[in-house]
Amino acid sequence: MNENLNAIDRLTSLLSKLPGLGKKSAVRLAYHILDADSAYAHALGEELIAFHGSIRRCSRCGSFTESDPCPICADPGRDHSILCVVERAQDVRFIEDSREFRGCFHVLDGLIAPLEGITPDKLRIGELVSRIRGENIREVILAMNPTVEGDTTALYIQKILKDSDVEITRLASGMPVGGDLEYIDRLTLSRSFRGRIKL
Amino acid sequence: MNENLNAIDRLTSLLSKLPGLGKKSAVRLAYHILDADSAYAHALGEELIAFHGSIRRCSRCGSFTESDPCPICADPGRDHSILCVVERAQDVRFIEDSREFRGCFHVLDGLIAPLEGITPDKLRIGELVSRIRGENIREVILAMNPTVEGDTTALYIQKILKDSDVEITRLASGMPVGGDLEYIDRLTLSRSFRGRIKL
Repeated sequence: MNENLNAIDRLTSLLSKLPGLGKKSAVRLAYHILDADSAYAHALGEELIAFHGSIRRCSRCGSFTESDPCPICADPGRDHSILCVVERAQDVRFIEDSREFRGCFHVLDGLIAPLEGITPDKLRIGELVSRIRGENIREVILAMNPTVEGDTTALYIQKILKDSDVEITRLASGMPVGGDLEYIDRLTLSRSFRGRIKL
Repeated sequence: MNENLNAIDRLTSLLSKLPGLGKKSAVRLAYHILDADSAYAHALGEELIAFHGSIRRCSRCGSFTESDPCPICADPGRDHSILCVVERAQDVRFIEDSREFRGCFHVLDGLIAPLEGITPDKLRIGELVSRIRGENIREVILAMNPTVEGDTTALYIQKILKDSDVEITRLASGMPVGGDLEYIDRLTLSRSFRGRIKL
């Protein structure tokens, strides 16, 4: 029935795999792309093909970067004695967008969740401990989301660091309980940084 | 600040140009694509680059196609004596998806809208008249959306065809007034085909 729409069907089918896009939205996007300049489709296509190749992980902090170490770790203007510990690499972006924090980052690559088999050894907690020993860190800000897993992970890190002389803080209220860093507005995130509490 | 996220920023900026995608949604999609298999990003990228090149317009009916004439116009199993007249090339797809109609199509490429400078000569109405003269057409179904412009265009086509012996029909109610073919559910569209009224 639709053999005449093969390329449109293929594009629609690929687009509808993206989160939040149903079949109808994918069809609309495909026709929008067809109506638009072909240069746009080319630019988007080339960007997508190069995408995974151009993004890697920073060997120090674990954030997404095009160079290693990432520009944040390599920036002498930032405060290298403060580490902000986040769950996922993309959380670095959300915090950077708030322009509130001038220290460095450490990405855990997940949160402790024993029921899902995610034990501390599967996270980048060992790397965090090594950095604290080797990099003259003064403060560690635990910026995991305020969920059960986030609180569990914060507690775990607090325990294994309790004998070190590093100051451990946790992002303050301002973030609603059960919320997600990705959806917090900039002002609320700023307030969480300013009001962080010592553990 | 974000020099380390260049490829992500570029992809986000391109994605946020798509209709219905704001900046936050575009960022989410970009990170989703980064988390997913790179084969997916490659497939989507290649499809986008080839997209405009592989889609053309059928020289007979004006619908989007990879071959000319399109598979619908070239299909001997379809009723070539009935033409369904639609506003846009993508409307052919929405009608095909309802599996209600087994005739052929004619795309107008717009609707008469004098205030926007769209006069009948800017639409594919002349081609419609030629096809009716040359192709032994028995019935013309006017399937434009039931809006002011759609009704105006239907009236205009009805007038210029009134001396021909072709039967002219208009899609029946079932479509809400002011609605759009793109968003009609399949059953409602089926009912519109079955209950079409003779003008």
